[in-house]
Amino acid sequence: MKSKFASETANTMTELVLPNDTNTLINLMGGKLMHWMDIAAAISAMRLCNAPVVTASVDNVSFHHPIKLGNILTIESKVTRSFSSSMEVYLKVTGEDLQAQTKYVSNEAYFTFVALSNQGVPIKAPELIPETEEEQEKYNGALRRRQLRLILAGKMKVDDAVELKALFVKS
Amino acid sequence: MKSKFASETANTMTELVLPNDTNTLINLMGGKLMHWMDIAAAISAMRLCNAPVVTASVDNVSFHHPIKLGNILTIESKVTRSFSSSMEVYLKVTGEDLQAQTKYVSNEAYFTFVALSNQGVPIKAPELIPETEEEQEKYNGALRRRQLRLILAGKMKVDDAVELKALFVKS
Amino acid sequence: MKSKFASETANTMTELVLPNDTNTLINLMGGKLMHWMDIAAAISAMRLCNAPVVTASVDNVSFHHPIKLGNILTIESKVTRSFSSSMEVYLKVTGEDLQAQTKYVSNEAYFTFVALSNQGVPIKAPELIPETEEEQEKYNGALRRRQLRLILAGKMKVDDAVELKALFVKS
Amino acid sequence: MKSKFASETANTMTELVLPNDTNTLINLMGGKLMHWMDIAAAISAMRLCNAPVVTASVDNVSFHHPIKLGNILTIESKVTRSFSSSMEVYLKVTGEDLQAQTKYVSNEAYFTFVALSNQGVPIKAPELIPETEEEQEKYNGALRRRQLRLILAGKMKVDDAVELKALFVKS
Amino acid sequence: MKSKFASETANTMTELVLPNDTNTLINLMGGKLMHWMDIAAAISAMRLCNAPVVTASVDNVSFHHPIKLGNILTIESKVTRSFSSSMEVYLKVTGEDLQAQTKYVSNEAYFTFVALSNQGVPIKAPELIPETEEEQEKYNGALRRRQLRLILAGKMKVDDAVELKALFVKS
Amino acid sequence: MKSKFASETANTMTELVLPNDTNTLINLMGGKLMHWMDIAAAISAMRLCNAPVVTASVDNVSFHHPIKLGNILTIESKVTRSFSSSMEVYLKVTGEDLQAQTKYVSNEAYFTFVALSNQGVPIKAPELIPETEEEQEKYNGALRRRQLRLILAGKMKVDDAVELKALFVKS
Repeated sequence: MKSKFASETANTMTELVLPNDTNTLINLMGGKLMHWMDIAAAISAMRLCNAPVVTASVDNVSFHHPIKLGNILTIESKVTRSFSSSMEVYLKVTGEDLQAQTKYVSNEAYFTFVALSNQGVPIKAPELIPETEEEQEKYNGALRRRQLRLILAGKMKVDDAVELKALFVKS
Repeated sequence: MKSKFASETANTMTELVLPNDTNTLINLMGGKLMHWMDIAAAISAMRLCNAPVVTASVDNVSFHHPIKLGNILTIESKVTRSFSSSMEVYLKVTGEDLQAQTKYVSNEAYFTFVALSNQGVPIKAPELIPETEEEQEKYNGALRRRQLRLILAGKMKVDDAVELKALFVKS
Repeated sequence: MKSKFASETANTMTELVLPNDTNTLINLMGGKLMHWMDIAAAISAMRLCNAPVVTASVDNVSFHHPIKLGNILTIESKVTRSFSSSMEVYLKVTGEDLQAQTKYVSNEAYFTFVALSNQGVPIKAPELIPETEEEQEKYNGALRRRQLRLILAGKMKVDDAVELKALFVKS
Repeated sequence: MKSKFASETANTMTELVLPNDTNTLINLMGGKLMHWMDIAAAISAMRLCNAPVVTASVDNVSFHHPIKLGNILTIESKVTRSFSSSMEVYLKVTGEDLQAQTKYVSNEAYFTFVALSNQGVPIKAPELIPETEEEQEKYNGALRRRQLRLILAGKMKVDDAVELKALFVKS
Repeated sequence: MKSKFASETANTMTELVLPNDTNTLINLMGGKLMHWMDIAAAISAMRLCNAPVVTASVDNVSFHHPIKLGNILTIESKVTRSFSSSMEVYLKVTGEDLQAQTKYVSNEAYFTFVALSNQGVPIKAPELIPETEEEQEKYNGALRRRQLRLILAGKMKVDDAVELKALFVKS
Repeated sequence: MKSKFASETANTMTELVLPNDTNTLINLMGGKLMHWMDIAAAISAMRLCNAPVVTASVDNVSFHHPIKLGNILTIESKVTRSFSSSMEVYLKVTGEDLQAQTKYVSNEAYFTFVALSNQGVPIKAPELIPETEEEQEKYNGALRRRQLRLILAGKMKVDDAVELKALFVKS
């Protein structure tokens, strides 16, 4: 199982917001966007481990703009780091109103996935190698975000989250 | 605009996992579950404010069990607290395999929503009154979760998150 | 195979009417509502027999109100009685316009299901025990409704439908 | 508003049962079939009144065969009679397993619709003229079925259902 | 494997354009129409070969009219000719605005399919026998269209397309 | 209305083949792929004209490989040339089986679109400027493909299709 460069896991997904995807105010439903983000991020994770994957967690996601019917969404995703049994994927969602010729960052998010064998048993994911400065930065932050995730899921004590705690105590 | 009791916003949604909802391992897709959770939570928020709502943010969600084709999901949701321009909703997702007669907690999550006028302008949400001990506890924690959300979205400095910081510094 | 109380089969399903579910007048399509009712009732039947079920028949359903985009539907279902090879489920559909703060009974209906083994062979359903007055009443009426169903399906002669015939002859 | 022949309202809809349409036993869901029947019957009703229509009621429907993934369904529908404010549509659903070269009648059903103006106000439907013997027979029976529908909906007393009562008393 | 008459492969599919099927101008999406045409044509091909089929190619399709929300589409399809390993299906799509009482030919198209065994291996399709003048004409043209398809797919040289070339050289 | 470079219209869409998208052999349906291609190509056309677009025609599409459940599809599209009232878009669909680590060209196709005002009236599309050798080649070929399209739609005589005819007569 050979390691891979972050760039090898990059994925771009574009969607057009159709009536089917909107809420009663004729804007994209948050839940539909998360559904698309889950598929996009899963493809990046599959590009790293060449195996089926399941969503393990979704970090805090904020929705800043209403996304209108007819707008275009571009979801860019890339694995940031792999741990023994999981992979963290970073997503950036950009919206475009091609008619008004405006473009806006809609969301940024982190999803984690677990790689599975065809029998559904978790398997080890290959190591991820960051190259660019941004990839390196996200690789480093992955440890801190993982601690926050474990604390929020009640699986880690605050005292053991060394990297995360430093953020609060230093300041 | 009169205040409401937390219990007045309670909502129960049940879904049967059909082939349409599954991934290539024939388990429920994480993204589809988030889509259902978004609808369920939105209904609770609408029960508080009697107006259209949009998803403002989704807190960390963990997926612990694969949810199989044919399983039943029960999504229970209730507003925990309203702030001037937003409402936090707590969700608990329970899975059941009626054939194997097993039942498991699948997820717990917090979604926040903003109430809108029919013209899409944010409006004030009514005050929420907790009654039971559990409702009171979630009402109190809402402040701390809101600080974490604002820090994660880059809208609050760590030093200003008094309630949240106490958690790290005390320990 | 132990018998169960009617209350153990109770199920509540809530849905938000989205653009996807509406007809050209922007009201919920009757066929979509029946699709949801079928899923809700199937869950109640599965709660009784802990096995896969298939729809055997749907009794007369009336649609009294147009259900508008953005309205909330609550579908409550409960098994009324089990026969050797089938179960009758009662459904009550309530609509709510949370913005106008109005609530209305949309439909009442009876669906019947047959329990199947994993090989698709019909199996015996457990006995259902009514407790409340309303459950007892629906339990008693189930026999009469079953006779009407068999007559309408051409499987029973009018003369053999003793309970049903009494209704017409007495009056 | 001129009257029309029954044959002018005939409609044929064919569907292929795809994974999307099946339940956990990989057979067509009853609710999905009712959704298709509702669309097919609505088209027949629209052919009579050249206006939008809404489903008013669905008569007893029985499901005799499991309909398998990959089977073909043919839904034939025709208006049987129009009353001042509603139309009754007869549907016949035939299933085919083209690989096994078997064909079976899956269902027969009666749906009623109300014609609406574009403002959603009920309007009068044109008169329907039966021509063939079968059309005449269904035209005659429509009165009896309508009485049963009104009784079941609690809108008519058993004693007033003259045509229907004759069926029970004579026998 | 006995040959069949063209008329034995005839299929009629009717669809009502619902909000779910439309683009941002509230007209039927071209892609959705092609999805329906693919299903309709596949049913005709299955009627000839009584086996699963897969789409092999779609000939040039033109869209002349915007098809509005609420319009009715009738897709008529029939196999025109079978070659050793494929079948050509002709489709005619008619649109109707029942409220405006207008009817228009929306599209004509040719799809080709390959018949497969249950193991996914291509199998021979039965011979098709044209009867009417129109069926005979389409049967003859099938050879010319097949040459164009093979040239466009880069599988035939222009010089070998005798029937097709005649069209250009003669004129 | 300023002209644009071909590269400004480039669009990439990635999709994961889910159970919902497959036929009875558990491979992607041809019609579903065409639905996705239509959306992808429409986005490229919208990038050129910054206005709503409708599909005008789809050129011959061949399907060479069965695309399996769980495979990834990447649809790359780019406008090749604009005519006064229409734009031609080139699409290349690549399939990947990430588990088997194989990659294959699934389809190449040309779709044409017409740009519309918000009132649904056709408007002029900006001029497209090819830059790379491949863009220039597709720009030149667009004229020939347009002649074939017009002949196939019965809107041009073979003798007037100068560029296309040269292909047959020279050889």
